[in-house]
Amino acid sequence: MASPSPDHVAVIGASGALGFGLALRLARTGVPIAIGSRDGARAVETAERARTIVPEGSFSAHENADAVRAIGAEGVVILSVPFRNQSETLANLKDALFAGQLLIDATVPLAAAVGGKATRMLGVWQGSAAQQALEMAPEGVHVVSALHTVSAASLSDLEHPLTQDVLVCGDSRADKRRAAALIDRIDGLRCVDCGRLEMARTTEALTALLIAVNARYKAHAGIRVTSLPEALWE
Amino acid sequence: MASPSPDHVAVIGASGALGFGLALRLARTGVPIAIGSRDGARAVETAERARTIVPEGSFSAHENADAVRAIGAEGVVILSVPFRNQSETLANLKDALFAGQLLIDATVPLAAAVGGKATRMLGVWQGSAAQQALEMAPEGVHVVSALHTVSAASLSDLEHPLTQDVLVCGDSRADKRRAAALIDRIDGLRCVDCGRLEMARTTEALTALLIAVNARYKAHAGIRVTSLPEALWE
Amino acid sequence: MASPSPDHVAVIGASGALGFGLALRLARTGVPIAIGSRDGARAVETAERARTIVPEGSFSAHENADAVRAIGAEGVVILSVPFRNQSETLANLKDALFAGQLLIDATVPLAAAVGGKATRMLGVWQGSAAQQALEMAPEGVHVVSALHTVSAASLSDLEHPLTQDVLVCGDSRADKRRAAALIDRIDGLRCVDCGRLEMARTTEALTALLIAVNARYKAHAGIRVTSLPEALWE
Amino acid sequence: MASPSPDHVAVIGASGALGFGLALRLARTGVPIAIGSRDGARAVETAERARTIVPEGSFSAHENADAVRAIGAEGVVILSVPFRNQSETLANLKDALFAGQLLIDATVPLAAAVGGKATRMLGVWQGSAAQQALEMAPEGVHVVSALHTVSAASLSDLEHPLTQDVLVCGDSRADKRRAAALIDRIDGLRCVDCGRLEMARTTEALTALLIAVNARYKAHAGIRVTSLPEALWE
Repeated sequence: MASPSPDHVAVIGASGALGFGLALRLARTGVPIAIGSRDGARAVETAERARTIVPEGSFSAHENADAVRAIGAEGVVILSVPFRNQSETLANLKDALFAGQLLIDATVPLAAAVGGKATRMLGVWQGSAAQQALEMAPEGVHVVSALHTVSAASLSDLEHPLTQDVLVCGDSRADKRRAAALIDRIDGLRCVDCGRLEMARTTEALTALLIAVNARYKAHAGIRVTSLPEALWE
Repeated sequence: MASPSPDHVAVIGASGALGFGLALRLARTGVPIAIGSRDGARAVETAERARTIVPEGSFSAHENADAVRAIGAEGVVILSVPFRNQSETLANLKDALFAGQLLIDATVPLAAAVGGKATRMLGVWQGSAAQQALEMAPEGVHVVSALHTVSAASLSDLEHPLTQDVLVCGDSRADKRRAAALIDRIDGLRCVDCGRLEMARTTEALTALLIAVNARYKAHAGIRVTSLPEALWE
Repeated sequence: MASPSPDHVAVIGASGALGFGLALRLARTGVPIAIGSRDGARAVETAERARTIVPEGSFSAHENADAVRAIGAEGVVILSVPFRNQSETLANLKDALFAGQLLIDATVPLAAAVGGKATRMLGVWQGSAAQQALEMAPEGVHVVSALHTVSAASLSDLEHPLTQDVLVCGDSRADKRRAAALIDRIDGLRCVDCGRLEMARTTEALTALLIAVNARYKAHAGIRVTSLPEALWE
Repeated sequence: MASPSPDHVAVIGASGALGFGLALRLARTGVPIAIGSRDGARAVETAERARTIVPEGSFSAHENADAVRAIGAEGVVILSVPFRNQSETLANLKDALFAGQLLIDATVPLAAAVGGKATRMLGVWQGSAAQQALEMAPEGVHVVSALHTVSAASLSDLEHPLTQDVLVCGDSRADKRRAAALIDRIDGLRCVDCGRLEMARTTEALTALLIAVNARYKAHAGIRVTSLPEALWE
């Protein structure tokens, strides 16, 4: 259900695997993408690479904060950085984020952030990385949590058909609907409303669970929620 | 892949909704069921009810510890009690459980155990209810975690076709395989190996997440893991 | 530093060991106490017992909600119930609590609430029992966390001299100061400001730690914070 | 109660504030110290600095793993590194640690490890940093948790008199007694047995609590356990 004039999206951490895959998949549906990276040169290189893979896509390259500024208050920010950088990144974005902007947090507090196993999580004081994002984002920014169970490898391989769900948490139904409208543009992804933002502690933890499953089965597993009605977002 | 002579199964907490549904579904595949309840009369009443629904099933009725004794060391124990009773139940089973017996823990540490919301979890000191079961079970009992994401309502309604996965965690692949062989007898359930027992903290938490999803969509949602190979347990 | 006209205090859960000890100690300093219990008869019996021990004290007896009503908006509520009853108790107090009332939460989420060991804690979804109290209390109630490390046995034994600190957490310095002014009336207790309410997860956990220490040393241990300045609350 | 021939101690992370303070204080009591650092040159520089402050002390300088080797199986290892390095450090020490060696873990999983506030903790999958140390240490290494509540600033300032307790957790009373005998050599410190290693999650969290207290009072606060018997380790 692609909307006629799609949102402009800034992907913060677009040189990472998940961020890059999202940038590619969204760009293919006509969403203009502001590629954000900590390092401007890295952003330029990433945008180059993205253009090679999706020549029809619209990519601009920026340092993270400038990517947020480039899309304006109407744009959507996807935060896709390693957990150990989430706090610092949000601090850096503080002056750039617009009131009213939608921020989709895809951060996963894997124990790997401090050298632990990939199948383990860190406990986040605020409850989840998403709640840390909410706490640190300026007043008026709308925070939604999503995209933790989508494999970066599958996203980046455009030949790979997707058939999985995206678990969306947030305190405002309208914000979640808007995030879902964006993400549902990607063929094969279906957004499911999983309740309030505080539920993100479990959707985030699913990343580690899927890493365990993938290790067992040499797969790129995803999650699907069964027995749901047809229309999930009306 | 029903084995020729199925295991004898004791369902501890069979008068609860999940335990009762499991008893019905397994009995229908030819598994003899020892119905366990804290109260002997309650067990008898539950077995009566089960026989009415599955007349071809084999049900015996016992207090919990006797149900475990009735199935012998070769049998499989399914622990399906409210979290607030798990510790006490395991203490009561201590003298009954056989070394070598397989114990499938289905306990969910919902915050509702202490009056909290159904969409919230309690943090378990040992990591998960499954790890509490492992800690409390006598030496030599094999503990596997499973069945948290299967809706009790769907199980009990035998007309309701199931098409969902059962997430299985455990420290021994052989134990998990044995649990899977039992559970996979139920039409429409597919067991997925989700790694070590410590992963149960996340599979347990999925119960609360599904409760949030169900509240949103008035559904009996389940979980399916996508992109897995055909053969999951060879 | 007893104030000239002390606050009226309602002790919710005053028939429990900690609540009873607090009621005695405060009454001895001239604070009028509304003894609250789930059961009115139990409250009467508890007040009788208190009067025997502290004949000069002023004790009235009420069901919990009525105890809160009896002290009025100017009074201070001390919540001292087992964790498994905290949520239900707060729900029951919802219509009784006054906006502006100070609520001192002394609840400890011991794993014993669900049959676990006394030296272990439950993880509370909101972070701590104190934050659960804040979430459940009506808008305008001021929540402070305190009193977890004071041994009930020592409090109740009026011959036992106290020399320990009370760790106070809360989001408002003024609220904490008011709680401290009340508690500091008790000879031998010294209140220490331990930061925001979210720090209560650690002060609550100290109860379990002290239980471990007491088991080792057959003691009624308390906590003291060293190297602090003289004046803690000016 | 200094023993006649003190243990040889390796301080891993001795160029950090806590490690350095411990090295100074222990050296002053006659304990020979192997200064360990990730970087050999840094170790040499740290040892130089230590000799200036405690000229009578015995300090040798090593990379971390070599410091462990230098003290032999009879020596005691103190692990005092930032949490984000704990896992990597333990991996590096794997081949160096001797079976039977005592490892005192002083690691604090502060949220600051991933950019969070200093008054907040990370939840550790295994329960605590100490339990992560136990998991990662080779079989036969004895792990004890201690020293989290002692302020690095107070330790390093040799003029500053100490009067506080050290909370010791561990699964073996003998190991804890040995750690206590070592630490109790430092004037003004008193070791208290706080139970099993799993209790370390709370003693570690006290660091963040004391940071909150210090922020409030501009102090270097410590912890003291009250109402204990005279003899704590016979």
